[in-house]
Amino acid sequence: MRAVTIRDERIVIEEHTDPEPGAGEVQVRVRAAGLNGADMHQRLGRYPAPRGSPQDIPGLELAGEVAALGPGAERFREGDRVMGIVGGGGQAQLAAVHERQLMPVPRALGWLEAGGLPEVFTTAYDALFTQAGLRSGERLLVQGGAGGVGTAAIQLARAVGARASATVRSAELRPRVQELGAHPISPDGFAAHGPFDVILELVGAPNLPGNLEALATMGRIVVIGIGAGAKGELNLGVLMAKRARLFGSTLRPRPLEEKALTARALERSVLPLFDSGNLEVPVAAAFPLDRAAEAYERFAAGNKLGKIVLEIGD
Amino acid sequence: MRAVTIRDERIVIEEHTDPEPGAGEVQVRVRAAGLNGADMHQRLGRYPAPRGSPQDIPGLELAGEVAALGPGAERFREGDRVMGIVGGGGQAQLAAVHERQLMPVPRALGWLEAGGLPEVFTTAYDALFTQAGLRSGERLLVQGGAGGVGTAAIQLARAVGARASATVRSAELRPRVQELGAHPISPDGFAAHGPFDVILELVGAPNLPGNLEALATMGRIVVIGIGAGAKGELNLGVLMAKRARLFGSTLRPRPLEEKALTARALERSVLPLFDSGNLEVPVAAAFPLDRAAEAYERFAAGNKLGKIVLEIGD
Repeated sequence: MRAVTIRDERIVIEEHTDPEPGAGEVQVRVRAAGLNGADMHQRLGRYPAPRGSPQDIPGLELAGEVAALGPGAERFREGDRVMGIVGGGGQAQLAAVHERQLMPVPRALGWLEAGGLPEVFTTAYDALFTQAGLRSGERLLVQGGAGGVGTAAIQLARAVGARASATVRSAELRPRVQELGAHPISPDGFAAHGPFDVILELVGAPNLPGNLEALATMGRIVVIGIGAGAKGELNLGVLMAKRARLFGSTLRPRPLEEKALTARALERSVLPLFDSGNLEVPVAAAFPLDRAAEAYERFAAGNKLGKIVLEIGD
Repeated sequence: MRAVTIRDERIVIEEHTDPEPGAGEVQVRVRAAGLNGADMHQRLGRYPAPRGSPQDIPGLELAGEVAALGPGAERFREGDRVMGIVGGGGQAQLAAVHERQLMPVPRALGWLEAGGLPEVFTTAYDALFTQAGLRSGERLLVQGGAGGVGTAAIQLARAVGARASATVRSAELRPRVQELGAHPISPDGFAAHGPFDVILELVGAPNLPGNLEALATMGRIVVIGIGAGAKGELNLGVLMAKRARLFGSTLRPRPLEEKALTARALERSVLPLFDSGNLEVPVAAAFPLDRAAEAYERFAAGNKLGKIVLEIGD
């Protein structure tokens, strides 16, 4: 099979041995695979894939058809449309994935949308609800609202009756963010728009003082992106006075059983909302496998609304 | 009635009008009242009492006998031994307290212990269990283990099967901390003793980097004391990688219904352990009401094991 391959920090396409499905695993013929921030870090050697995942093939998510079943696999049949998060190796023509990590693709979604769904909707759902406990009527601020996780979070908040605002650097992307359901605001002076019950931080530590200032009593900040910097000053006095909570979270290092639990939560609480039209997967651009290097450049350039997805053929 | 009174940052004893119990309130003839860090701040004008509490009479906790019942009060009878947290005004001969904030005094406890129990055991219980979710088998670090909240936290951890370590600056106090159930360690280089699942921070921001270093994956830090400083550097990358949580908490500004809930939790889960001998209230020193200024000096001097309590007569 052919796959995106990292060679000396370059993105190339190389031939690899087909992955065989082990016990409880499914071999997926990949049709689409979204790009994520972690791919950029992995390319630069700063975010190695977990043990048991391909080290040189990037890709944290995929969608495709079940091509073969490993011993004991029983959740799906050959030909079923599936999608899911993987530890690595998603950007390839074939991938072996544990069946408990896979979800059925909602009928309303095409391959590109399905390939760009798992990572950002799982991340946003886990951060907003499992971690921060966002509830109807609460006010959410998404720091970095135009990206994949941001657009997912905005829609999820709207779907449960929360009121979202989102910082969007690019003025031209703000109308689209508003359509998705958030009040778009400039990152400059965002703190004046509070108080917020939950803040989803996708940008980094420079926002920390403003986040704390803009937080409501009993507010929660969930940090899942730090591209703009990791270290910032925290005022514990304000944290105490507001009885605030600050959570850090990542999905990738979690054990299989936890990843399976997040997949079940998504199946139950999120996937039905794609078929009912409450949620969509905004795809900013799609690239065929051969042009993966270009897709990486596009992702790194930013200023996009939603996902960059690889389209993968036979 | 006579009461501790704050006059120009000085502690004096003055005559005040007796507080009458309002609807649902109980008039308590106070027998003992513990001192707390908040009293020190209030004395300096940095921590005003919440609305509805006496502004010039300090005191966040008390124990005594029910002297009179306000309209509709029904939980206690005249003469019952009660104790509880109050918004202020605890360091007086009489106090009017809502009956839902009061708890019965365990039989095993004398007045001094009862007067020093509510604030620190409620604070420690709320921080360790309600906030941080400490469970049996987990490792706890108490930053500042010799004080009132620290000694309560150590005992509560031991009582539920958690394993506590505690930083104690004074070498002479360490054997007593060990008797209470914690492995006593020096504050210098504490991070080498990790990983800890829960860290209870009673000292302040200077511990923040070491706390994060010493924290286990999925670990929780609860900040409820910042005497050594409020502002510190936080590495959000470590917070994410460890999927860590940082909570700030205070009891005082909470509404009556939340304070009542913490009182019910204490009645159910903590008070029985005093009668069974699992818990005690270490009292470092007691002072009669007339010597309250001395009690404040003793509290501020630190280097004590447990509570400073005022003994209040008729």
